[in-house]
Amino acid sequence: MNYSELASRMLKAADAMEGDTLKVVASGREYQGILMPHHEFSDPDVLVLKMKSGYNVGVRLDGSSAVEVISHAERKEKPARRQKNESGLKTVAVIGTGGTIASYVDYRTGAVHPALSADDLLGAVPEISSICNVKARVLFSIFSENMDVKAWVTLAQAVREELDKGVDGVIIPHGTDTMGYTSAALSFMLEGVERPVVLVGAQRSSDRPSSDAYTNLIAAGRFCVECAMPGVFVLMHETSSDTTAAVHLGTKVRKMHTSRRDAFASINSRPVARVHFNGAIEVLQNVAKENREHYLKDNMEENVALLQFYPGMDPRTFLPLMKAHKGIVIAGSGLGHVSSSMVEAVREATASGTIVVMASQCYYGRVNLNVYATGRDLINAGAISAEDMIPETALVKLMWVLGQTDDRKKVEGMMTADLRGEIAERRDVDD
Amino acid sequence: MNYSELASRMLKAADAMEGDTLKVVASGREYQGILMPHHEFSDPDVLVLKMKSGYNVGVRLDGSSAVEVISHAERKEKPARRQKNESGLKTVAVIGTGGTIASYVDYRTGAVHPALSADDLLGAVPEISSICNVKARVLFSIFSENMDVKAWVTLAQAVREELDKGVDGVIIPHGTDTMGYTSAALSFMLEGVERPVVLVGAQRSSDRPSSDAYTNLIAAGRFCVECAMPGVFVLMHETSSDTTAAVHLGTKVRKMHTSRRDAFASINSRPVARVHFNGAIEVLQNVAKENREHYLKDNMEENVALLQFYPGMDPRTFLPLMKAHKGIVIAGSGLGHVSSSMVEAVREATASGTIVVMASQCYYGRVNLNVYATGRDLINAGAISAEDMIPETALVKLMWVLGQTDDRKKVEGMMTADLRGEIAERRDVDD
Repeated sequence: MNYSELASRMLKAADAMEGDTLKVVASGREYQGILMPHHEFSDPDVLVLKMKSGYNVGVRLDGSSAVEVISHAERKEKPARRQKNESGLKTVAVIGTGGTIASYVDYRTGAVHPALSADDLLGAVPEISSICNVKARVLFSIFSENMDVKAWVTLAQAVREELDKGVDGVIIPHGTDTMGYTSAALSFMLEGVERPVVLVGAQRSSDRPSSDAYTNLIAAGRFCVECAMPGVFVLMHETSSDTTAAVHLGTKVRKMHTSRRDAFASINSRPVARVHFNGAIEVLQNVAKENREHYLKDNMEENVALLQFYPGMDPRTFLPLMKAHKGIVIAGSGLGHVSSSMVEAVREATASGTIVVMASQCYYGRVNLNVYATGRDLINAGAISAEDMIPETALVKLMWVLGQTDDRKKVEGMMTADLRGEIAERRDVDD
Repeated sequence: MNYSELASRMLKAADAMEGDTLKVVASGREYQGILMPHHEFSDPDVLVLKMKSGYNVGVRLDGSSAVEVISHAERKEKPARRQKNESGLKTVAVIGTGGTIASYVDYRTGAVHPALSADDLLGAVPEISSICNVKARVLFSIFSENMDVKAWVTLAQAVREELDKGVDGVIIPHGTDTMGYTSAALSFMLEGVERPVVLVGAQRSSDRPSSDAYTNLIAAGRFCVECAMPGVFVLMHETSSDTTAAVHLGTKVRKMHTSRRDAFASINSRPVARVHFNGAIEVLQNVAKENREHYLKDNMEENVALLQFYPGMDPRTFLPLMKAHKGIVIAGSGLGHVSSSMVEAVREATASGTIVVMASQCYYGRVNLNVYATGRDLINAGAISAEDMIPETALVKLMWVLGQTDDRKKVEGMMTADLRGEIAERRDVDD
């Protein structure tokens, strides 16, 4: 969306451009600040000014408004950024995929642009160059709701390539919408990964005072360099205040809030580490395994679907869909249940060769098909327990397992075994 | 599952029956306690003894075990319970539907039986008769994963009938698996309900020391009598300790743990009240509206489905399914998003007459289709925002709304309006 005709005209008349310091009078009040770029989400009549306080203020123009330039910004060409190898610093690859965090921020104006080059991406967080040498590339520039199985494979290959070239860690700026799915996919494809691979996102775009983009990126850099724990992780704000980030295991993490900065939670697990923005990194659980061989196992079966059970779910609708897939994960109710009529659909789907895995729509806690008759009926119908995996991780794992083998026994064995920290040891707790 | 041949033989030889106090020697240890009934979930070789401490112990018999009766229980007929109207007490209807909580518990032995009569149901919690006069009936006796739209309608009619007869409140013991769906369904069908309707469940069967069945039932009785807030609610343990129950609004509650007693949470809302088991009832928010007319609006459209978006979701599979339904709720990613190819499927489904509602698989937070391009594309494709409703409540509401009207504009208006506390007022929070 561009500026309205009114706003364009007033800015042109005042010879005002992005980065200039303006005085704007609107609705009887006077505002002074640096003109921020107008982007897609802005109201066409609103100028955004960065105030001395650092906060941005939106000023709505109308016919009685006045715009005046107090000082013009220097209009120089941005020098190309050099990626020099400072001695003593570790090297971290940054592979951009898109999302709020991967937008380019001009520090002078706080402007947000889509990150289109490695240079832009690095320019956004200059502080990171004191932490590590950054080797940046932009692989995709998409909203994460458009990530798909093929994109996961491309990304896993790119990560493996960087690790093979010897980088000390990989940071993947990623849209938050499906970051948990991608982290699970990388966890399975990058078997025995020998160095940290950290997905990092932002819930607030970089032009907002409350943005978590810089803090999360820098924390990811510090985690790669200072902690160096091998594995695939998601790093995001831990609380709604600006003090710590939590590093979650890539197979145990879920976006649990639409907008808060601390939207991500470890489910049925603790975070592996806590990064204090002004302090040390606490390791909460060490998930690294010693002396592992590493492999890229990037065969994924795409013909797998995720369904949620609900009362009234009609087997006449869902049985054909289940039969048409090689694998189905059902987020059942409670301990992993479905209605009797859906149990019959599971039986028929399984008989036709579909692998059916039962997870729980409760998310927290563990599937247990041995407690109630419905669960035992599901076992008899051929369903496999997702144990304490969230349905999304069970979905991604089933895609991966079916990419490795077609043998039903092997699929069942792999689905119920802990391969990447995705299944916690069973405890008998009565809480 | 019955006792094994070995166990049956040993019990018969000792003339031991349920309720008798036994001495059992097994694996070199001696146990003394009251013989509990053997039920479906028990191991065939295991006797369950209630010890003096109140805890149950499972004792596995083998060829070297010995069973001896120390004292026989009185074997008297259970007297029929009288439902007398004690003066001064309010009257509460208890409508049984099944589930763990509705099992009959014999206080002498702690035995669990399915509740098949109103007398059994009442016998389970004799303390409740000092709180209110109970008018009990068993409507269903099913696992709640088998509740469906028709059962919701039958239940709503039964509740309305009891209220019309003048009871002061209605308690509905219900399986926990789908209790949140049922509470949402009753909330919509019982428009303007004038007295409390409380669904109550148990996560632990009554024969376990940690059972929450009694405490929750008694708390529900107290809430109906002492608080008398009109509305449809779910009452369950508030924490994992045995001190308080939370009363959740029927449209804002979700089962968030497979097994913990505090599995239920108010999502995007606070509980309406806290019942201290040994103290007062705190009202946390009063949701009662004054002077309402009440109606039973029990028309529900069954041809509505719930889908969860995931990366790789294939429109070729899901478009025909969407078109075949009158309404679809999609639990989208983040603020309520789907991939571009699924946006196209939404557009085609909407064009064919299907109502599509976007909720969020994050559960916490609010759908906002105005922030990103994907959301705006979804609005243009005809999708309706579920606001801060959980997907399950959005599903049930859409079934109900489509049962009231076919007019697209009216459906959209009703779906985005707060009718039963299901949509909170929008706040602009930057946390």
